[in-house]
Amino acid sequence: MPAQPDVSASADANKQFVLGKNQYGKAGNHVVRITRDTARHEIEDLTVISQLHGDFETCHTEGDNSHCVATDTQKNTVFSFARDGIGSPEAFLLRLGDHFTHDFEWVTGGRWGAEQSTWERIKVGGKEHDHAFVQNKSDVRTAVLLIDESGPHLAAGLKNLTVLKSTGSEFHGFPRDEYTTLVETTDRILSTDVAAYWRYNTTTLDFNAAYADIRRILLETFASVHSLALQQTLYQMGTEVLSAHSEVIDIRLSMPNKHHFVADLNPFGQDNPNVVFWAADRPFGLIEATVKRAGGDDDFARWQSILNFC
Amino acid sequence: MPAQPDVSASADANKQFVLGKNQYGKAGNHVVRITRDTARHEIEDLTVISQLHGDFETCHTEGDNSHCVATDTQKNTVFSFARDGIGSPEAFLLRLGDHFTHDFEWVTGGRWGAEQSTWERIKVGGKEHDHAFVQNKSDVRTAVLLIDESGPHLAAGLKNLTVLKSTGSEFHGFPRDEYTTLVETTDRILSTDVAAYWRYNTTTLDFNAAYADIRRILLETFASVHSLALQQTLYQMGTEVLSAHSEVIDIRLSMPNKHHFVADLNPFGQDNPNVVFWAADRPFGLIEATVKRAGGDDDFARWQSILNFC
Amino acid sequence: MPAQPDVSASADANKQFVLGKNQYGKAGNHVVRITRDTARHEIEDLTVISQLHGDFETCHTEGDNSHCVATDTQKNTVFSFARDGIGSPEAFLLRLGDHFTHDFEWVTGGRWGAEQSTWERIKVGGKEHDHAFVQNKSDVRTAVLLIDESGPHLAAGLKNLTVLKSTGSEFHGFPRDEYTTLVETTDRILSTDVAAYWRYNTTTLDFNAAYADIRRILLETFASVHSLALQQTLYQMGTEVLSAHSEVIDIRLSMPNKHHFVADLNPFGQDNPNVVFWAADRPFGLIEATVKRAGGDDDFARWQSILNFC
Amino acid sequence: MPAQPDVSASADANKQFVLGKNQYGKAGNHVVRITRDTARHEIEDLTVISQLHGDFETCHTEGDNSHCVATDTQKNTVFSFARDGIGSPEAFLLRLGDHFTHDFEWVTGGRWGAEQSTWERIKVGGKEHDHAFVQNKSDVRTAVLLIDESGPHLAAGLKNLTVLKSTGSEFHGFPRDEYTTLVETTDRILSTDVAAYWRYNTTTLDFNAAYADIRRILLETFASVHSLALQQTLYQMGTEVLSAHSEVIDIRLSMPNKHHFVADLNPFGQDNPNVVFWAADRPFGLIEATVKRAGGDDDFARWQSILNFC
Repeated sequence: MPAQPDVSASADANKQFVLGKNQYGKAGNHVVRITRDTARHEIEDLTVISQLHGDFETCHTEGDNSHCVATDTQKNTVFSFARDGIGSPEAFLLRLGDHFTHDFEWVTGGRWGAEQSTWERIKVGGKEHDHAFVQNKSDVRTAVLLIDESGPHLAAGLKNLTVLKSTGSEFHGFPRDEYTTLVETTDRILSTDVAAYWRYNTTTLDFNAAYADIRRILLETFASVHSLALQQTLYQMGTEVLSAHSEVIDIRLSMPNKHHFVADLNPFGQDNPNVVFWAADRPFGLIEATVKRAGGDDDFARWQSILNFC
Repeated sequence: MPAQPDVSASADANKQFVLGKNQYGKAGNHVVRITRDTARHEIEDLTVISQLHGDFETCHTEGDNSHCVATDTQKNTVFSFARDGIGSPEAFLLRLGDHFTHDFEWVTGGRWGAEQSTWERIKVGGKEHDHAFVQNKSDVRTAVLLIDESGPHLAAGLKNLTVLKSTGSEFHGFPRDEYTTLVETTDRILSTDVAAYWRYNTTTLDFNAAYADIRRILLETFASVHSLALQQTLYQMGTEVLSAHSEVIDIRLSMPNKHHFVADLNPFGQDNPNVVFWAADRPFGLIEATVKRAGGDDDFARWQSILNFC
Repeated sequence: MPAQPDVSASADANKQFVLGKNQYGKAGNHVVRITRDTARHEIEDLTVISQLHGDFETCHTEGDNSHCVATDTQKNTVFSFARDGIGSPEAFLLRLGDHFTHDFEWVTGGRWGAEQSTWERIKVGGKEHDHAFVQNKSDVRTAVLLIDESGPHLAAGLKNLTVLKSTGSEFHGFPRDEYTTLVETTDRILSTDVAAYWRYNTTTLDFNAAYADIRRILLETFASVHSLALQQTLYQMGTEVLSAHSEVIDIRLSMPNKHHFVADLNPFGQDNPNVVFWAADRPFGLIEATVKRAGGDDDFARWQSILNFC
Repeated sequence: MPAQPDVSASADANKQFVLGKNQYGKAGNHVVRITRDTARHEIEDLTVISQLHGDFETCHTEGDNSHCVATDTQKNTVFSFARDGIGSPEAFLLRLGDHFTHDFEWVTGGRWGAEQSTWERIKVGGKEHDHAFVQNKSDVRTAVLLIDESGPHLAAGLKNLTVLKSTGSEFHGFPRDEYTTLVETTDRILSTDVAAYWRYNTTTLDFNAAYADIRRILLETFASVHSLALQQTLYQMGTEVLSAHSEVIDIRLSMPNKHHFVADLNPFGQDNPNVVFWAADRPFGLIEATVKRAGGDDDFARWQSILNFC
């Protein structure tokens, strides 16, 4: 049966309204690549997003799909390319970006991202198994490639890396107004979920090695710095990465302050010398900053395109 | 017992590295405001985020907190301000932004956001109850206020509005390359979760009325347009809002293509004339665009600050 | 390349260990059924789980799959059966259960469940659209069929129905021990997410009508009862359903107490006559009970099999 | 202003309806305990639920709270007890259960559960830090104590332990009916999220050591068994635990079959010898079973009370 007819969207005759920034593609392409050339298998596990930038105006304004590379085609390309191996999320995204910007002349750029899950070998009798793995969910490795008119821009990162210091953190000396009730402290728990993204100034690098070392630096710096504010810890984490890795342009960190409140045990006749804490969910502090090299451009719009929309 | 001493973060003597864009504050402030002046109660339910911009450099570089308005103070302010009523998320954020940028001289701006949950009256015997409510979770109303050097920028929006058309959607005429296997169709299910954000050119408006009408337009346009591509539907939804609401500068839409695949029933000796669908989770299409007025600035960096970081 | 050989699981020769209760099947079958016989389409949206009970011992003990109906086959059956229409989740599950317990002689029973999403017509110009829908996510309708040696057992339900009373709720008179600090109150917010499951004593019923009326009773009773404890509200909700629906054997309710704490505004020189609340996430109260007819069996193990494992 | 008056819930005069199984308490008590007697801190991180069983009838039927131990009191008790140390989740729950069943004469039993998060020391320069930790989210340790008329019943467990074998898994020989389309395979990826719960026959045990060893056995057995069905792998995992741990009465496992489908690369002129997989989310297989000692009671109702409601 024919349904109630829909209205054709007429092209906007007078061009009062126009298409602004736009992108589209396929998200959530979960590809698992097994390397099984020897009995000792390797596993790479990526969830990939592909988003194209270019001339898609008539698709929006008229429903003319002659330029609209199907998102299904983008998905197929991800799986087909994985046949030749992945190597690193960064290298894989570079191959995808190069393909799409050359295969279709009206595709002038895009944004390709990947999240990598980590698998470790199960140990059997103390010996690493050849083809059995357990997932390490402690954090997620990320990579994003943005291609725009100035070329490729590559950012690596990680997120959901949950850390905690049981001492070595203070917070005092903050300004007080009529809404301030917080008590100053010289000893508190400091806990956060680290999300960090850093831009490389190169597309040829041992990305896996760089990633591992930057992750190590972030952890070690969080542990080592005596914190007077989470902002200070964040900033120091950033500078240590920049100091050790000249291939890193700048780094953005987003770190919630996961409050651990000292439980009030006085009503029960107990003291509480910073041993029992109530771990709260919401509200939480949220500290975000970019650390860059002196003289460096903030490059704000490009950073935003890397992390999000367009 | 004294723990292993932490290392003091030394100020970066040579200033090789500097602080870039940054913001901080308190997220997840879930405030519920009951208006109970009469027996017929009203309920407003907001989850608020407050993030400050300004001179916080020494907090990051030296752990000097003399400028660091505690996130706890920001939380307290949210709850205290709610005592005087909320009115609309937009109006509430404007009060907060005005307060923080005037109460502390080094706070030059910020980003304040709210998500509003919707409560409807429970009907008892067909009559709306005075003080019993059921939550309508169909979508979430959002609002963001950005204050920067050029003044306040206000955006309203909604997200997670899930819609579906069981016909009146086609997709064909797209380009084919070696990775294209998608079959063309003249009749498919079209389903998406609408996320829309629009900027107002004013801070004095009946925000609740404007929101309700824009939400209505988005729904009606999705329903009415015969779709040749989700991009076309999205664009038309945007232009209809701009056409009806002169106070809207531009609008951004992000809409996943929630694939409903026709189940293959041939192996079971059955036809399937578009009646049985498998609703897939991942991968999914993702279509994002801004629709603006002809001659309008894309104002990209500001849009990004409204939606996300800094 | 041959990988490190795996060890064959030898059958447990001495039968020291044996298989206990077990079930298996396919979860997350998301089927959307469009009825399009006329221009006014109807949509049914179910996520189905199928789990079989029966003689699957050698599958577990020896890896002999001759009785192991593939979970893929169970999935196919769900989609194929949807071709003939759904009608109600309960009726659909009854068809599935009947099929599996008759198609395979060693399948003696099973557990089939469904969650139904609700779609409402989009109104265009005040008129309901023929084929455009918006999802109502306020709650999820559920149904479970258990077939065991005593026949079919059918339970309907709902979950995630979030309700709130802004007054008409007290809590006092509770016992006090050395760990009690809670202050008594005669006026608090009462809010919960209702999960309710009720068993029918019949498999032939207008399940959609019964569901709608029971949902109405649950909402109206929550609204109408002056609450002295969430337990009391829960119990009254149960008795009202039993009172009105003789086809309901008994009803189980699980209701968190979603705390809304009165915000302390004293530090800011403000009173707070129950108007500003902080809505907490965790910890939360959790109240669970069955309400049954006098003389009714608790039938506990069967209830558990309906709701969960085996 | 007085609101619309609520209706008093009258006690059910004729006792047509009665209270069945019930329990209530406080969920989501997230307690973090730091042991800081030396510079090398220890961290224990539990989220605890406390639920009481006993005589709570008039609370439900009349709103008489004289027996209703406030859920807030239960929360306070959790935090107060943590002051004296935790030791293991099992030992902590035993203390709580003993307290509640002795402190209040009408509390005849209950259900206490805990989920433990794992923290590992951050290594700085290869050396484990004294007071800085990173969370290992690979799986969650669980414990449940049920106290009923027959005494305490203690179950330990883990969940969300994600494992994968890239070969060493077959599936064939399953029955075929008209709905069977699945192709047989002698080499597939096998992946699951292990949830396991086992009952101890003692309340005095080195629970941390037992847990660690059982977790090791589950992982090693998953890795080592050449799988002909996920059921077979599950069963073997259970028997290995029972074989090595005489203090374990029985064990329940729930394991989804997380399908990894071989990507079809034929349209792109590529073979795919089990190297590129599409990791699907839904639908998924779900395999659940108890493995017990020969002659052991299934004890089904008690198992259900341990895992869930009442």
